[in-house]
Amino acid sequence: MEEFDFIQSIKPKYYRQSSVIKGIGDDAAILRHTNNDIIMTMDTMVENIHFNEMTTAPFHIGYRALAANISDIAAMGGKPVSYLVSITVPDRWSAEELQEIYQGMTALANAYHMDLIGGDTVSGEHLSLSITVLGTVNNGKARYRNTAREHDIIFVTGTLGDSAYGLHLLLNEQDDAASQYFIHRHQMPSPRVSFINQARPIERMALNDVSDGIANEANEIAAASDKGMLLDFDRIPYHDLLAKNSPDNLYQWILSGGEDFELIGTVPPEDWDRLMEYAKLTDTKLTSIGKVVDNEKFNGKAWLRYQGQLKILDKSGYTHLKR
Amino acid sequence: MEEFDFIQSIKPKYYRQSSVIKGIGDDAAILRHTNNDIIMTMDTMVENIHFNEMTTAPFHIGYRALAANISDIAAMGGKPVSYLVSITVPDRWSAEELQEIYQGMTALANAYHMDLIGGDTVSGEHLSLSITVLGTVNNGKARYRNTAREHDIIFVTGTLGDSAYGLHLLLNEQDDAASQYFIHRHQMPSPRVSFINQARPIERMALNDVSDGIANEANEIAAASDKGMLLDFDRIPYHDLLAKNSPDNLYQWILSGGEDFELIGTVPPEDWDRLMEYAKLTDTKLTSIGKVVDNEKFNGKAWLRYQGQLKILDKSGYTHLKR
Repeated sequence: MEEFDFIQSIKPKYYRQSSVIKGIGDDAAILRHTNNDIIMTMDTMVENIHFNEMTTAPFHIGYRALAANISDIAAMGGKPVSYLVSITVPDRWSAEELQEIYQGMTALANAYHMDLIGGDTVSGEHLSLSITVLGTVNNGKARYRNTAREHDIIFVTGTLGDSAYGLHLLLNEQDDAASQYFIHRHQMPSPRVSFINQARPIERMALNDVSDGIANEANEIAAASDKGMLLDFDRIPYHDLLAKNSPDNLYQWILSGGEDFELIGTVPPEDWDRLMEYAKLTDTKLTSIGKVVDNEKFNGKAWLRYQGQLKILDKSGYTHLKR
Repeated sequence: MEEFDFIQSIKPKYYRQSSVIKGIGDDAAILRHTNNDIIMTMDTMVENIHFNEMTTAPFHIGYRALAANISDIAAMGGKPVSYLVSITVPDRWSAEELQEIYQGMTALANAYHMDLIGGDTVSGEHLSLSITVLGTVNNGKARYRNTAREHDIIFVTGTLGDSAYGLHLLLNEQDDAASQYFIHRHQMPSPRVSFINQARPIERMALNDVSDGIANEANEIAAASDKGMLLDFDRIPYHDLLAKNSPDNLYQWILSGGEDFELIGTVPPEDWDRLMEYAKLTDTKLTSIGKVVDNEKFNGKAWLRYQGQLKILDKSGYTHLKR
């Protein structure tokens, strides 16, 4: 397929967002966002690094890549609006497979009324997918990592380790009924956009998304806020089957399993009940997993309470846990 | 170098643009553009497709890739403000070479007071550089391709074919003094940002940048505007040495040589003198190369007048010119 024909085939028939003044079809897109702050994020997924043809269908390559970017928008407290896609495609990929990648993105984009507004297609030896997502947030209301304060409650959405376990199942070709849940979580993650937008009335919230494992993300909040993040291992939410089926890898998956695209954050204790309400309203599992301390000994790092002992929680999730 | 250290090394010490509320260092960047329309463009350059290590130093890879995106912003009549960079790097690239790519981008970005606000770094088998540039333009004042009208004067900035000839010289390892001009034009192109921003008072202007050759770009304006673009071959500006040194490739380089990053556009005849003034003010070579017609026979296509004959000008630059 010629590049021109391909662009025509993926070009939206109409744009959902009134902010899109000009989408695909000129030298660049034109957007109008006069009332909100703009959130910009960009991520690249590369064949054989982030996925491979064995475990990831073209549809899921597109879906996951866009989900990762949308999760960054959620982690700033915003909502996604439009996106640009630059794809590098080897000749051996068929036009149908290429279309399926875009269909994967479109499926997720439709759920958020997002518009594809630009990008390009180039040929190359390995598939590579770069996505830029633009989102919006009310002026001055973006959620940063550096706003955690003493006594804050640390929360996390959903369950952790699902995506890592899903990948493990795919790699080991296990696909019984129970496996499907985890594989689905790996292939089609759901960024927490509606929950975090529901939670807008909460004045102060430090926020991060769980893309590289909760150990890493908790450390990022601790470092940015210069506070100590004390996590209770027993309260970290994970799926029953994870512990049952693969106890050996449980700690690693929960603490450092990436790409769950859940949210971790901190809120003042007085806002906790409200946050639980917002979670219920948006059908979001929400768990309190620890608290923020302000103490020279703990500040700047994440810590894990496990069997009565408090240990430093390395970014990588490595903890010297006795088992 | 660890990714964290690398990000620290490229992270700007400060941001020039007041629109940057949050740059690198959280899940995404936050921008505030309440008075202008936003221009978004994204382009990818891949090793062995768009450049190779023999002809392009790391510094120039970065410089050219950013220039290509800035040129798209200019082609919409705007100015570039900020950019995100996603780079895929093979292990064999050293940290120094990687830094040089960013230095190439920074050199050009500094000239426009642009800020690097995000992106990511991943490893892969081939170098690939995706850049997203955000620019601004006064509300409702973006320049599109579809506004050419009958009697408009067709203009082009600079000289054409320089970049293609520069690449030819590089590939043939010719580097006498005269070659340096063309090689420089290939390695460090200058998007026409100041000219096009000076020309803001002109009410109507169809506009495109010359990234794939003037034949292609003239056809794009003709198709979008549904008018005929009549170009005079004798008036198309090119450098003396081009004709003198390589007459065989002259036509191809002028008509379809890409990446000159000049601008082609159309303006009403009554605006021509003013446009010439804006060109002088910004030290920009500006040439009238033809006119727009509205005639069923010609509409939707570009045409070339050559030795008294008017021939269809194919997108590729192929014209059946007798020589």
